[in-house]
Amino acid sequence: MCDERLNEGGIFAIYARGTDVAKVTYFSLYALQHRGQTGAGIAVAGPDGIRCQKGLGTVGEVFTETDLNQLNGHMAIGHVQRGEGGVPGPEEAQPLVCRFYKGAIALEYNGNLINLSKLREDLFANGSIFHTYTDAELMVNLIARYSRSVTLEEALMKCMVDIKGVYAMTVMSEDKLIGVRDPYGNRPLCIGRIEGNWVLASESCTIGMLGGTFVRDVAPGEIVTIDEQGLHSVMIFPRKKSALCMFEYIYFARPDSVLDGINVMSARKAMGRELAWECPVEADLVIPVPDSGIGSALGYADALGISYNMGLIKNRYMDGSDVKTREMRRDLSVRLKLNPVTRLVEGKRVALVDDSLIKGTTSRMIARVVREKGAREVHFLTACPPVRYPCKYGVGTFRGDELTAAARTVEETRRFIGCDSLYYLSLEGIYRALGSESGFCAACFDGVYPVNGGEA
Amino acid sequence: MCDERLNEGGIFAIYARGTDVAKVTYFSLYALQHRGQTGAGIAVAGPDGIRCQKGLGTVGEVFTETDLNQLNGHMAIGHVQRGEGGVPGPEEAQPLVCRFYKGAIALEYNGNLINLSKLREDLFANGSIFHTYTDAELMVNLIARYSRSVTLEEALMKCMVDIKGVYAMTVMSEDKLIGVRDPYGNRPLCIGRIEGNWVLASESCTIGMLGGTFVRDVAPGEIVTIDEQGLHSVMIFPRKKSALCMFEYIYFARPDSVLDGINVMSARKAMGRELAWECPVEADLVIPVPDSGIGSALGYADALGISYNMGLIKNRYMDGSDVKTREMRRDLSVRLKLNPVTRLVEGKRVALVDDSLIKGTTSRMIARVVREKGAREVHFLTACPPVRYPCKYGVGTFRGDELTAAARTVEETRRFIGCDSLYYLSLEGIYRALGSESGFCAACFDGVYPVNGGEA
Amino acid sequence: MCDERLNEGGIFAIYARGTDVAKVTYFSLYALQHRGQTGAGIAVAGPDGIRCQKGLGTVGEVFTETDLNQLNGHMAIGHVQRGEGGVPGPEEAQPLVCRFYKGAIALEYNGNLINLSKLREDLFANGSIFHTYTDAELMVNLIARYSRSVTLEEALMKCMVDIKGVYAMTVMSEDKLIGVRDPYGNRPLCIGRIEGNWVLASESCTIGMLGGTFVRDVAPGEIVTIDEQGLHSVMIFPRKKSALCMFEYIYFARPDSVLDGINVMSARKAMGRELAWECPVEADLVIPVPDSGIGSALGYADALGISYNMGLIKNRYMDGSDVKTREMRRDLSVRLKLNPVTRLVEGKRVALVDDSLIKGTTSRMIARVVREKGAREVHFLTACPPVRYPCKYGVGTFRGDELTAAARTVEETRRFIGCDSLYYLSLEGIYRALGSESGFCAACFDGVYPVNGGEA
Amino acid sequence: MCDERLNEGGIFAIYARGTDVAKVTYFSLYALQHRGQTGAGIAVAGPDGIRCQKGLGTVGEVFTETDLNQLNGHMAIGHVQRGEGGVPGPEEAQPLVCRFYKGAIALEYNGNLINLSKLREDLFANGSIFHTYTDAELMVNLIARYSRSVTLEEALMKCMVDIKGVYAMTVMSEDKLIGVRDPYGNRPLCIGRIEGNWVLASESCTIGMLGGTFVRDVAPGEIVTIDEQGLHSVMIFPRKKSALCMFEYIYFARPDSVLDGINVMSARKAMGRELAWECPVEADLVIPVPDSGIGSALGYADALGISYNMGLIKNRYMDGSDVKTREMRRDLSVRLKLNPVTRLVEGKRVALVDDSLIKGTTSRMIARVVREKGAREVHFLTACPPVRYPCKYGVGTFRGDELTAAARTVEETRRFIGCDSLYYLSLEGIYRALGSESGFCAACFDGVYPVNGGEA
Repeated sequence: MCDERLNEGGIFAIYARGTDVAKVTYFSLYALQHRGQTGAGIAVAGPDGIRCQKGLGTVGEVFTETDLNQLNGHMAIGHVQRGEGGVPGPEEAQPLVCRFYKGAIALEYNGNLINLSKLREDLFANGSIFHTYTDAELMVNLIARYSRSVTLEEALMKCMVDIKGVYAMTVMSEDKLIGVRDPYGNRPLCIGRIEGNWVLASESCTIGMLGGTFVRDVAPGEIVTIDEQGLHSVMIFPRKKSALCMFEYIYFARPDSVLDGINVMSARKAMGRELAWECPVEADLVIPVPDSGIGSALGYADALGISYNMGLIKNRYMDGSDVKTREMRRDLSVRLKLNPVTRLVEGKRVALVDDSLIKGTTSRMIARVVREKGAREVHFLTACPPVRYPCKYGVGTFRGDELTAAARTVEETRRFIGCDSLYYLSLEGIYRALGSESGFCAACFDGVYPVNGGEA
Repeated sequence: MCDERLNEGGIFAIYARGTDVAKVTYFSLYALQHRGQTGAGIAVAGPDGIRCQKGLGTVGEVFTETDLNQLNGHMAIGHVQRGEGGVPGPEEAQPLVCRFYKGAIALEYNGNLINLSKLREDLFANGSIFHTYTDAELMVNLIARYSRSVTLEEALMKCMVDIKGVYAMTVMSEDKLIGVRDPYGNRPLCIGRIEGNWVLASESCTIGMLGGTFVRDVAPGEIVTIDEQGLHSVMIFPRKKSALCMFEYIYFARPDSVLDGINVMSARKAMGRELAWECPVEADLVIPVPDSGIGSALGYADALGISYNMGLIKNRYMDGSDVKTREMRRDLSVRLKLNPVTRLVEGKRVALVDDSLIKGTTSRMIARVVREKGAREVHFLTACPPVRYPCKYGVGTFRGDELTAAARTVEETRRFIGCDSLYYLSLEGIYRALGSESGFCAACFDGVYPVNGGEA
Repeated sequence: MCDERLNEGGIFAIYARGTDVAKVTYFSLYALQHRGQTGAGIAVAGPDGIRCQKGLGTVGEVFTETDLNQLNGHMAIGHVQRGEGGVPGPEEAQPLVCRFYKGAIALEYNGNLINLSKLREDLFANGSIFHTYTDAELMVNLIARYSRSVTLEEALMKCMVDIKGVYAMTVMSEDKLIGVRDPYGNRPLCIGRIEGNWVLASESCTIGMLGGTFVRDVAPGEIVTIDEQGLHSVMIFPRKKSALCMFEYIYFARPDSVLDGINVMSARKAMGRELAWECPVEADLVIPVPDSGIGSALGYADALGISYNMGLIKNRYMDGSDVKTREMRRDLSVRLKLNPVTRLVEGKRVALVDDSLIKGTTSRMIARVVREKGAREVHFLTACPPVRYPCKYGVGTFRGDELTAAARTVEETRRFIGCDSLYYLSLEGIYRALGSESGFCAACFDGVYPVNGGEA
Repeated sequence: MCDERLNEGGIFAIYARGTDVAKVTYFSLYALQHRGQTGAGIAVAGPDGIRCQKGLGTVGEVFTETDLNQLNGHMAIGHVQRGEGGVPGPEEAQPLVCRFYKGAIALEYNGNLINLSKLREDLFANGSIFHTYTDAELMVNLIARYSRSVTLEEALMKCMVDIKGVYAMTVMSEDKLIGVRDPYGNRPLCIGRIEGNWVLASESCTIGMLGGTFVRDVAPGEIVTIDEQGLHSVMIFPRKKSALCMFEYIYFARPDSVLDGINVMSARKAMGRELAWECPVEADLVIPVPDSGIGSALGYADALGISYNMGLIKNRYMDGSDVKTREMRRDLSVRLKLNPVTRLVEGKRVALVDDSLIKGTTSRMIARVVREKGAREVHFLTACPPVRYPCKYGVGTFRGDELTAAARTVEETRRFIGCDSLYYLSLEGIYRALGSESGFCAACFDGVYPVNGGEA
């Protein structure tokens, strides 16, 4: 089970006259909520300029019907936020709305700037001030510096030369929407149509949910503009070797999304099948660690012809951020979220399947409670390789000292978790499941970082 | 998919010196939260008498750590509330805490009094006043009338002669806890031990989650007392023909619970298998309607050897009570909660399996969106019989005019839902799955009501 | 300066078809807010029965416009609450709304029952239960016991035989309003007309503020009914020796009210004049302790021809209940509320005039800060006698151990306060100011309690 | 009675090691609360850099004890906000905290920039972005532009050349506090010592209230720095002709403050005396319009030997911003706030004294309700001249079309208000009362604006 702190942000943009764009964006954010629950925001551009409503918490917590009714216009961008270590203040919520030389601008930046400090120092030296520590505020300052005599797209192109990092970004001025995906395509962004109008979204599931049709992914390095004339594309960077974050398929994305041509649910089931071929165990029952292990567990059980059942019941009402659980014994904390079904596991050889194994502390507790309920054997199968390298691109808590696989051998990890056997899917197995050996960032598995601060 | 308004309340009680009984009760309510999300409360008895914290909303919304720290004592009862049509005011939340002749008393009543009006009239005539419309307040008044010269258990026995209905109930005075289950055992209640202390709970999953051991179910008509001397039982009523609500197995209870000796997850999978034998369809893929249809879908797919997959993705962040979805088109509302995975369903013959079919409007939308995503055939399988009769015992919205099966033939319902075929499991099939033909209330299927106001 | 905990509740009632009675009551409560800031409530009777909105806090905090719009009807009663030691829970806010044999009933009780315990024991023995510790809940239970075969007024008469205490009370059934004042008239209650409709109110200032006309005071022991036929009076008790609480004139009531024929502002100025005749001091400047000492200070300065000025500036934004001031040094706490005007007091002989002196701790700090700002002499004049006896009728904090005058001689109190001289107005002086020696309860000054539990 | 929208902001700053500077600042803001109730904020600098807590509302609403406990350091600045037409968002609350080339900076600007638009356009052209519309954000941008190679004080001097307007300002960097008053001294700012530490404050009443001593006013155009070495002064601008806003004496400042050497309470009483000499009326009773008219009414009554009394009772619980009063009849709205004491006014010739007369609508209602209560004659006396010119320096609602005196002759205004006579104090009368004919901005009376955008 992936750590709850692992989450990506999600973005959405729509240009649609005659539509309640705030409401559509609001619903779109529900479909993207799995990508971030610490903040949400919507900015709308209309006859009164750009108005914004944002705050900390989930979509359901941030917006009231009254808020939405006050956001009138024909363009909107929306955002759900990732919380990367520590709770940001409400002023760090996105979209960021400012005024600059050409009027109002709203921007949402989803990703990580690895040369943020240097860029900020340069701006300080030229007299800029910063209200927040966000990448988004830095981006708007950069754009403002460049935009006096060029178009917004041209200013963005200049910025893309300066910044090193991964990102998907939407920018809204008073008369157009712009979407940008970094030259490596590390973060997903796609184009869709809803009732004849253009939209951009982090994941295709949103578009389908809204009753629209998926058109295509934004290409790595592509700048896309949506305005009164429709959608235009400006390819700026010579496309680099694509490197979509592999954890999108393993964990982040919703099973009903298709990213760069690959359906997530199918990919996960395929990973489970590859895992079965690489690491078959003798078991009476395959149990997924819900919800993230369901796809691979189904594939694993199918391929081996072992019975599959929901032997761990997830409590839908436990909120990961619930402070009151702090003082609980760790095993109670796990059982509150995942309780084994005694009648299913007692006397059985159980194969627990999860999508990944990061810190290992939760997996250890799961193995323990399953064994306490009478499982004869507990095998732990992980549908991706050991995570040995921290992520430089801002993905949650992949810090070196927290990665169980970085500090331990597989056998040591097995003993730590306390299971009878522990298996990981190989990187080749993932490539087979995804049908391609290129196009992905696998840096957390192999230490090969596609984007670097120095040269990029 | 059962209607979200269908939910039962849940109760918990603990007697444990030297334990933070408020915290244990608080955690227990998280494990019972699926039985009711409209209100929650905890009353604790200790040296300062009985103190109570309660309110509208979920457990996470009602209690702060400060609240819990102020509830000190050695006995506690806790409650999660069902909302049967309409939002009750906060004063209707349970437990109800009052003072009467013998001191303070806290009571939580989970069930339905079918002769409530008559009992209330009698009390009015004797000078009682009522602050609320709850069964709980009526019960405390009845107890107070009887309790002048008898014990609390004796007063409860007298009350049980007067009241007609189904219930599980806990009562806490300043020196003991009492648990009662109605003579028909329509509502579940069980006994467990946690670290040497006695507890009562609506479902056994709570006890396991807390690290305790399940001891036995409270018998129908049994009054159980827990005090300084331990647990005592007083059987009062000649045990009637047991009639546990069958929807506990079909829908209400958590899969990891065991009710009257039957594990819920196993029962659901068995219902799926029975459904497969009774109604096999030619399909390429079995898809459960999450979460309630997962158990029976697994059994159905297993028995027929058809591939099983999570072809409908549930949005964990949509809150059923979210007012802002009111004005949405109904299909958007469904897709926000359950979005089909296009790649899985397109070109397939799909068997959708759900636990039950009440109003049919959601099922209709699911069938429609699955077909829109390209399914070649859509079959709908229901792991229980048509619900034709309203529940007299307070179970949510089983009103006659809302039951699609009460007004339509199966063929008419099939056309209403718009699927290629529609099948229900027979009542006999359920009996086979549960391993017994007696002991259940199946009134909503067969119209035979075990408890009546007139004679009982 | 009277202690802030000293406050009385206030009540209002109106019967007016075709009027937004909730809004009128809401405004009336603003004019009564000085009588209690810890709770507020409004109950309205109309075609849908009786509905109520109430809560802890001030009128401005408890009601939203939405709340008021939902209270439709043609009769209303409203209440502002006194907090006598400790914050009651929201369930103790008034009006209390219940159902009994004859339907719904709302009641607000303003006063104190001195035989509360005995009455409650009797009701317990007959099977009553209590949700709160309020006098109001006891009254409703008593009424319910008596009301089976008699009218509501008759039931109230029976209750008045049972209860010992002081009170003003309004009761609203589904078809009429009833107002009651205790046989001693200890609490004020008056009758007015607003646009042809009858109203009842604790103070006449409310009626004038609403644009209506004062009609007369409710007589001690009188029961007044307002219904479709208008206003009727039933005199039940042989009128006792009137004993209106003298602190109404000294401190509680608003200066623009007329109670039992005496204007409060005029009475206070007259007390100041009496004080001048009894205790003239040689001073350069008379300074009132705002706001309670303004009336008597004006009278004092006038009578002696000494200059009067607002030498202590009251901070209107300090809320007495503001928890954050707890840890302040006591003198800072006083200056935050009352800061001396240095230029006015330096080098002067100052006469500080206050309405009363209860605990003396605030007076001591005032004297100190005035002296620190350079006053040459500080004289303290109190426009009522020493408060030596605790109030048995529920008036705030007049507990024996808190009364500086009960434990100290005048000279000791002068040294405690640290002023150059300290004078009190005599009881005879008050009688002269009020124009009568009878009709008042002066128990806190002379220890003669008009109402007793034993005989009444 | 001055319009409630008329209010000035207030500022405070303290440098004090070993003191809880957040708490001291918090209390100081209570004493400045009369200068603005729409927002409040405190920024503290300490070992962890600069932290800030701010929000919309009063001091009591914005801060909790927890907030204050988290603000640790040895320097603090605090602000209460004026709301000049329309509610700003919380992001517009002050102090503004940003980072720039030299680290963190907090700034609070109290006043008005009359060349704001031009300055903003210049900054836009150089690439600045703006999050808010505040003067404070513009100031920080200007400072950041200038500060690369000079000290913070030097940067401020450069800014003072650029900006045209009136202001009192405090700036806090990580190692010092700076206070600035505009070259005309239009806004007050003074220096005090509290327990050996230096403080700055808008009004001297704050310093006295905190137990400190007033040292002197900051001179017009002076920049004052407080750091580890103590207090230093840098006089930058050739001092212009002083022009302190005269309404500080008439209305804004607290009576216990001393501004530029003049005590406010004494000034108001002196204005009343001047008014008596210029415009004596034959009256039986002088009544102040509370609270703003109390000082001048006392002076007026004293000088003429007419009886003075509080004939209008102010409701302390009515909050001017209370939305629910919108739909009230205007006379009810006035009486809710100011109710006449019938017994005092009936049959009398009444002289109502107020500090000023802006729009006249409230005065009209007061005159009407006093007459309704039986006053034989109603005279209206205003202790300042007719306000005929709008304020260019940001003081509330002195817009031309709202000024009754700008559109009407005195006789027309008298008829509008409906009083028997109407008198204003002359500007010469004010000068006599203040003891000087120079040093003040009287632009709203005489149209002579000391500060202009073009030349200044």
